Amino acid sequence: MTIDRLHAARDIAVETGTDLLVLTPGSDLRYLVGYNAHPLERLTALAVPARGEAFLVVPRLEAPMVEASPAGSLGLDVLAWDETDDPFALLAGAATARLSRSPGRVAVGARSWAEHALGVQRALPGSELALASPVIDRLRMVKSAAEVEELALAGAAIDRVHARMGEWLRVGRTEAAVGADIAAAILEEGHVSVDFVIVGSGPNGASPHHELSDRTIEAGDLVVVDLGGGTSTGYRSDCTRTYVVGGSPDAEVAEWYGVLQAAQQASTAAVRPGVTAEEIDAAARQVIADAGWGEHFIHRTGHGIGLDTHEAPYIVAGNDLPLLPGMAFSVEPGIYLAGRRGARIEDIVVCTEDGVRLLNNGPRELVELPG
Amino acid sequence: MTIDRLHAARDIAVETGTDLLVLTPGSDLRYLVGYNAHPLERLTALAVPARGEAFLVVPRLEAPMVEASPAGSLGLDVLAWDETDDPFALLAGAATARLSRSPGRVAVGARSWAEHALGVQRALPGSELALASPVIDRLRMVKSAAEVEELALAGAAIDRVHARMGEWLRVGRTEAAVGADIAAAILEEGHVSVDFVIVGSGPNGASPHHELSDRTIEAGDLVVVDLGGGTSTGYRSDCTRTYVVGGSPDAEVAEWYGVLQAAQQASTAAVRPGVTAEEIDAAARQVIADAGWGEHFIHRTGHGIGLDTHEAPYIVAGNDLPLLPGMAFSVEPGIYLAGRRGARIEDIVVCTEDGVRLLNNGPRELVELPG
Repeated sequence: MTIDRLHAARDIAVETGTDLLVLTPGSDLRYLVGYNAHPLERLTALAVPARGEAFLVVPRLEAPMVEASPAGSLGLDVLAWDETDDPFALLAGAATARLSRSPGRVAVGARSWAEHALGVQRALPGSELALASPVIDRLRMVKSAAEVEELALAGAAIDRVHARMGEWLRVGRTEAAVGADIAAAILEEGHVSVDFVIVGSGPNGASPHHELSDRTIEAGDLVVVDLGGGTSTGYRSDCTRTYVVGGSPDAEVAEWYGVLQAAQQASTAAVRPGVTAEEIDAAARQVIADAGWGEHFIHRTGHGIGLDTHEAPYIVAGNDLPLLPGMAFSVEPGIYLAGRRGARIEDIVVCTEDGVRLLNNGPRELVELPG
Repeated sequence: MTIDRLHAARDIAVETGTDLLVLTPGSDLRYLVGYNAHPLERLTALAVPARGEAFLVVPRLEAPMVEASPAGSLGLDVLAWDETDDPFALLAGAATARLSRSPGRVAVGARSWAEHALGVQRALPGSELALASPVIDRLRMVKSAAEVEELALAGAAIDRVHARMGEWLRVGRTEAAVGADIAAAILEEGHVSVDFVIVGSGPNGASPHHELSDRTIEAGDLVVVDLGGGTSTGYRSDCTRTYVVGGSPDAEVAEWYGVLQAAQQASTAAVRPGVTAEEIDAAARQVIADAGWGEHFIHRTGHGIGLDTHEAPYIVAGNDLPLLPGMAFSVEPGIYLAGRRGARIEDIVVCTEDGVRLLNNGPRELVELPG
């Protein structure tokens, strides 16, 4: 961990007229100073004033954990508070002293809890509360080479889980039973946390965020399996494949699954610097619409990924952000026939200097598993 | 799930001058309507106006999940939004229509994300943003008989994990290895999630929220083991025991551990309706201070527990809330000798009509494990 990210954040804050950034436990804090704090009600916050040095406000009982983390080597002031102190007043006082005035625009992390955001605002009367995402996302969106390698490790780990799907996904088992086995495998194959396990069998495959139910898998079912976990460095995996279990796809499925695969390929192939996020979305959407299935593709094409599973940039109509080398995101079109079945194909991809690198590399065909 | 909690929340909102409650994914939402939604960037929100019926705003791709949840049987309007819609405008419009005017005071869940809270405020110009906790905590703090039984099941499950500690906690193993085994056992013994695993051996035991490190356990170490998980109904466990591994406690430890045990017992024995939260805190604190160890008890005595591990009421100096039957919280004094070692004893207790019920029942003595 170095102080560079913190200084870069401060520079963007100054440039955007933000007097003070306040970041509570979560990925923003981990990204900037390497402290992977638990989200709890006691205030832990990194304060980055536009002038003067950044500092941390932490409960005294957690001060040893800060010192033991990478943040401990950055030389930041650590202001510890006791159980009956007011940590918001502590933060406000220290920030005001560094700025030599009351801050005007105060930006809090997008995923900070409301009780912390409003606590900061109450302690700084006259301040205007905003989100820190315009500042922090500019940094977090563009992955360094080291971050891309972390995402590649996560991608390879989740590919290994998909490659083992035949061990668990069988006719007669429930989604819940299959999901429990998959969750164990996500840990075995190199993650330290299971973020989500979606096993959408038969009609449940038409609900994109369906998770696990007691439905028993039947012969011939299409099954959408969308998996994600976190590695020890905090980077996430997210990969979807669709399986057919104990049977072969019928003609209708074969037709629209081919459309879906072409659509996913079209978006992936469109990735290069300067192309906008909405153009990546449109590439898949156009293929599906041209084939007459447009109304069944009911969500955006993708989302950024890094220390959070979902983060900027979002690959969606209306987002005219031009891609830069280092941006990492999912490409995951789906076709959903309500009440009947569905399919989705999802890879994590990275925009490179001259095109795209795929971080998931398992087969994208409909995988037939024996019953 | 019934509509009763929702109506009770609305009644308290009216009583406290709150025009609109907005609750996003998390325990408040699960408590009020039974929808256990994932926290994601797309807005999912329960809106409870002071007049008119409550409604849900959900991404269209997750609408099937709402319908499949207990919330689906409550007859609430479900307003689904598409990827390029503005969900905040949708929420604001529907709330304003029900109230027949723009809401003044809008209260958001304490743990709602800042981006959602500020999005709601931006869509309701002129509104004043507040926290919903004064409304919701009044309900959530007082557990029903059914909720107490859920907490009792969670407590018994974590007691079974502690009872097996000798299987894993041995000289020569690292905290991380021990912790991994404990995490697996938390799931085996009846939880569906591992919330935290603290194994603080030797000097690490003096850091109350220390988690897992690569430190190897040595003969004679004191080891603080604080464990928690969530059950399928969402209720949490949280129980700490301190062990001595491969040796016997020396005279100093034997003395102050006895003080700690007496302190924990004093707070537990003080629990009954009408006693205040800070009086429960003071009971343990006084015992420890009287014995000369006061400066080493560096945190509050406890926290409420339910669908969140930490929730109201907090058992801390300055909280003059009188206990009511059904309030459930931890009693967890500790003594910490910085750089050397520490100990903590924690039970979950419930205030009953005439005293206290303990939901953790394993031995509170310093447990000696063979090396």
